[in-house]
Amino acid sequence: MAFGDTRFLQRRRKLSAELAGKRIDAYLVTDPINIRYLSGFSGSNGALLVNKNLTASIATDGRYTTQIAQEVPDIEATITRDCPKALLDSVPGGTRVGFDANQVTVASFEKLKKAAPDDVTLVPVTGVVEDVRLIKDDFEIRKLTEAAAIADEALKGLIDAGELRAGRTERAIAADLEYRMRMLGAERPSFDTIVASGPNGALPHYAAGDRELSDGDLVTIDFGAHYRGFNSDMTRTFAVGNTTEFTKEIYDIVLEAQLAGVKVAREGTALKEVDKACRDVIEAAGYGEYFVHSTGHGIGLEVHEAPAASTKSTGVLKIGMTLTVEPGIYVPGKGGVRIEDTLVITSGAPTIITTTSKELTIV
Amino acid sequence: MAFGDTRFLQRRRKLSAELAGKRIDAYLVTDPINIRYLSGFSGSNGALLVNKNLTASIATDGRYTTQIAQEVPDIEATITRDCPKALLDSVPGGTRVGFDANQVTVASFEKLKKAAPDDVTLVPVTGVVEDVRLIKDDFEIRKLTEAAAIADEALKGLIDAGELRAGRTERAIAADLEYRMRMLGAERPSFDTIVASGPNGALPHYAAGDRELSDGDLVTIDFGAHYRGFNSDMTRTFAVGNTTEFTKEIYDIVLEAQLAGVKVAREGTALKEVDKACRDVIEAAGYGEYFVHSTGHGIGLEVHEAPAASTKSTGVLKIGMTLTVEPGIYVPGKGGVRIEDTLVITSGAPTIITTTSKELTIV
Repeated sequence: MAFGDTRFLQRRRKLSAELAGKRIDAYLVTDPINIRYLSGFSGSNGALLVNKNLTASIATDGRYTTQIAQEVPDIEATITRDCPKALLDSVPGGTRVGFDANQVTVASFEKLKKAAPDDVTLVPVTGVVEDVRLIKDDFEIRKLTEAAAIADEALKGLIDAGELRAGRTERAIAADLEYRMRMLGAERPSFDTIVASGPNGALPHYAAGDRELSDGDLVTIDFGAHYRGFNSDMTRTFAVGNTTEFTKEIYDIVLEAQLAGVKVAREGTALKEVDKACRDVIEAAGYGEYFVHSTGHGIGLEVHEAPAASTKSTGVLKIGMTLTVEPGIYVPGKGGVRIEDTLVITSGAPTIITTTSKELTIV
Repeated sequence: MAFGDTRFLQRRRKLSAELAGKRIDAYLVTDPINIRYLSGFSGSNGALLVNKNLTASIATDGRYTTQIAQEVPDIEATITRDCPKALLDSVPGGTRVGFDANQVTVASFEKLKKAAPDDVTLVPVTGVVEDVRLIKDDFEIRKLTEAAAIADEALKGLIDAGELRAGRTERAIAADLEYRMRMLGAERPSFDTIVASGPNGALPHYAAGDRELSDGDLVTIDFGAHYRGFNSDMTRTFAVGNTTEFTKEIYDIVLEAQLAGVKVAREGTALKEVDKACRDVIEAAGYGEYFVHSTGHGIGLEVHEAPAASTKSTGVLKIGMTLTVEPGIYVPGKGGVRIEDTLVITSGAPTIITTTSKELTIV
């Protein structure tokens, strides 16, 4: 990181603004993903304290002495065995220190209480860093786009090589796709790759098994690349050999639904309206009972982040949010279709960072 | 699962015995791995309540209605949105309910308190299920052995195919090995595969990068297969092309250290003695300062479990524990060697479930 890289400071500034409304003087960050987001430190153990005046302190253990100096040149690090204690020790009396009640366990909280000076108050809060993470900055959008491009390119390679074909097992296709993503720079898949063929396509949470793809199948591939901390997520459904009336029918409905969801996904749209746009198409076609999950989720340092687009969502889309749009139809015993893109929300048409064609492709 | 399969009941019986000494009437299990261990349910959301009289209740959400009935035929499941609440609602007045303070967050605990009837006491405890998991039963040992065999076979396939060779990148070798494990039935690697060649071998936590293996290198490969919930873990170091005086010397020392650790690893041996057996050999050879980590850890449903073998360990080995023995030498700028087996502890010589040869192999 060049010293001129101020994105971490900018993120801490946004966090500080969130804290102002909560009567919190400093925030103790213990979740490794949030530490990475706010400081750049990618080690597995550490703690970060951000004060409302934007000064910050950070701690880790001896394994990361060199790494933290390289990754976090703008905050002096304390090397210690008990990171939260080291940071709390230096907090002035009377300070109200927030911590993440969704991340700190009951046992860890007992330790924090013992570590904190007597006149420091620990304040449980939730979702503070997550609220900042909702709006992706340019760096994040660039990395998410790169991760998505790895997945696109891996899938193209698989298809161009003729390796997505009848006679091959779901497992082999998943392993092949993961291999290609690894070779393109991914550290690992974002989640266990789903290759669900024929009747298995009717199970939304199926992974990949020993079934061989066969003529007339639909095969749903849902996968992503984990790349430098960021994740991608895309689903495409292919026809194997010949299509049938059934497979063509449900494919066309899901594609129409997906396009309807993408069309309304922009700044100011209620999240439940994105869900409704997809659901309306599927319900109008008579398949409403077979769309058994919600429409989408945010993605970033985690595969599933806020916001969520479902029938129960309450918020609205804002510029810089990410959102998957992934309607599906699952007909038990017969098969299923899901089509999913990842979008970056703008004031106009969203930027679709998953670029593989959505036309029905026969393999 | 056949109904005659009583391993889950046996595990719950051991848990019940642990609770007896703690004045706890029932234990609320919320960690998915522990729920799987005690009931067989492998879904991502649920809760399990085990009473000291060995009756049990379990809950999950609507996604898993069919799955939980198949996986847990011996406990009637409640399908609900708030699993802990559903289970606590049925607890009789005056009950003391234990929960895992290392797993339940501060925010979840607040919800549990609201969900629990007024006359039910929630008691924070730690490590109760983990203590039961310390001693592996026959089923677990069989699955761990199968997972280790997948890793052995994948590595053999890589070597037999001539794909562990000079000119190939660390990344390609890692991706290839992971592909082979996937094809042999693994769901995923147990952890990001380490392929550390030449000077990278001096970094114990290095993963795999773009460096090409070259003549005279040592290359350390540390990897495992995640298979049906269980994990394997093995490290082998190979010589690429020609060996040098340096590479042969440190290889021989580490191998001697590893064999010394394996030799003492049996029922009744203090864990720190296993560490000492390895460390003594390396120190005597003058490389003590380059053995920068502890000697080993348990493995099972998680890659790193109790017990730990380090200079600070206090316990002793018992029959049915698992333990890795993985000494290493890391010389900055030059390279490193690590050799690791996974053992199952017996009253005599341990069962070594990682079976790849430890003779220095030139590739």
